[in-house]
Amino acid sequence: MKQLLIASTSTIHGSGYLEYLLNDLSVFFKNINTVTFIPYARPGGISHDDYTIKAKKAFKKINKHVIGLHEFKNPIEGIENSEAIFTGGGNTFVLVNQLYKNNLIQPLQDCINSGTPYLGTSAGSNICGLTMHTTNDMPIVYPPSFKTLSFVPFNINPHYLDPIPNSTHMGETRETRIKEFHAYNTQPVVGLREGSWLEVNDNEITLKGIHKARIFEYNKTPYEVGSGTKLNALK
Amino acid sequence: MKQLLIASTSTIHGSGYLEYLLNDLSVFFKNINTVTFIPYARPGGISHDDYTIKAKKAFKKINKHVIGLHEFKNPIEGIENSEAIFTGGGNTFVLVNQLYKNNLIQPLQDCINSGTPYLGTSAGSNICGLTMHTTNDMPIVYPPSFKTLSFVPFNINPHYLDPIPNSTHMGETRETRIKEFHAYNTQPVVGLREGSWLEVNDNEITLKGIHKARIFEYNKTPYEVGSGTKLNALK
Repeated sequence: MKQLLIASTSTIHGSGYLEYLLNDLSVFFKNINTVTFIPYARPGGISHDDYTIKAKKAFKKINKHVIGLHEFKNPIEGIENSEAIFTGGGNTFVLVNQLYKNNLIQPLQDCINSGTPYLGTSAGSNICGLTMHTTNDMPIVYPPSFKTLSFVPFNINPHYLDPIPNSTHMGETRETRIKEFHAYNTQPVVGLREGSWLEVNDNEITLKGIHKARIFEYNKTPYEVGSGTKLNALK
Repeated sequence: MKQLLIASTSTIHGSGYLEYLLNDLSVFFKNINTVTFIPYARPGGISHDDYTIKAKKAFKKINKHVIGLHEFKNPIEGIENSEAIFTGGGNTFVLVNQLYKNNLIQPLQDCINSGTPYLGTSAGSNICGLTMHTTNDMPIVYPPSFKTLSFVPFNINPHYLDPIPNSTHMGETRETRIKEFHAYNTQPVVGLREGSWLEVNDNEITLKGIHKARIFEYNKTPYEVGSGTKLNALK
């Protein structure tokens, strides 16, 4: 039975790393002692060690031990022997490239699909969708594929951002970008605002947190769904 | 002798398509009757025909004829027989994918390097750099490579955006993204604000327009250069 918590962001404005999620995480990970942390997305180019220290500090507050996946000699065994997995945010291209390079796509799918609890934030949430075609990140490395872990039957757009009122900038809004995505792809996209997350219990997918989410379906007008909405039928 | 005009954007706020550039374009294209338009970047998923009509209308104001590259049976011959080339903005991934699919990288390099005048805006400017690793676009398709045309010995970041004061959004600023790029790549990046462009005359590269540009060199603090600055030494 799949158990995932797929969060838009690790950090909301004015709050510490993972702070807004800690109460929910202590419930989500209640039977877990040690969480394996995948630090590959390297926000700001931070080292795997430094990023893992950041995760350790946050999880210490709910009495969980954290081990970085890079600390295992064999990362496939690291995944296979995990009690729980957390993939942090950063750059999705860097993350996906490293997952492919270390042959971790299938082991991660096997492990999560058979019930190992998974937490993702930002880039770590993006990879829970069908593809990474709806990431917001800069393509600073070239991964061998944009296909991701497919734990949910749609794509995720984390850090979903509404158009900025009175902006004079001519770059595309997030909504325009997702509409362009649908000129070439047909799967739905869930725009998750910062402070929102999806909770997955087997095939039940529930929107959580304080915000609505914006749903983009192929050939449909985008629409909003409130916290608590089940997205089981979205595919 | 190379002649390029590499613009951050086609359109500045409150102005029509290409309007702010038309005076300079009438000088840049003074010996040209017909401009071949590459509509592949398809902003908003617009068709090649509709996008070409938009370019035709703008160029009519300076008495230039425009022909869409998609109107040629053989796009390689279309490029080879061009008097001048304009690549419009849209999605860089879609543009680069189509250039590779139609085997146009080498023909474009041959043609522009031997003196055919080239105008790029936004995505059409991005491809003038060494790679498309510093595009702002969403990766809605998977191109066979991120390598681009290398008309200048650095990367371009069009629509360069300064951090938004008092923003509570936790997504990365443009500067943070480019710093992350430099965790994996060493070439310089020129952040071109909307309303700025680079003029290339053989090996002379000059910043034009009303704004400063922000230069990011590997292992250096980013810095600003004013309009009129020569960037010949940047590599």
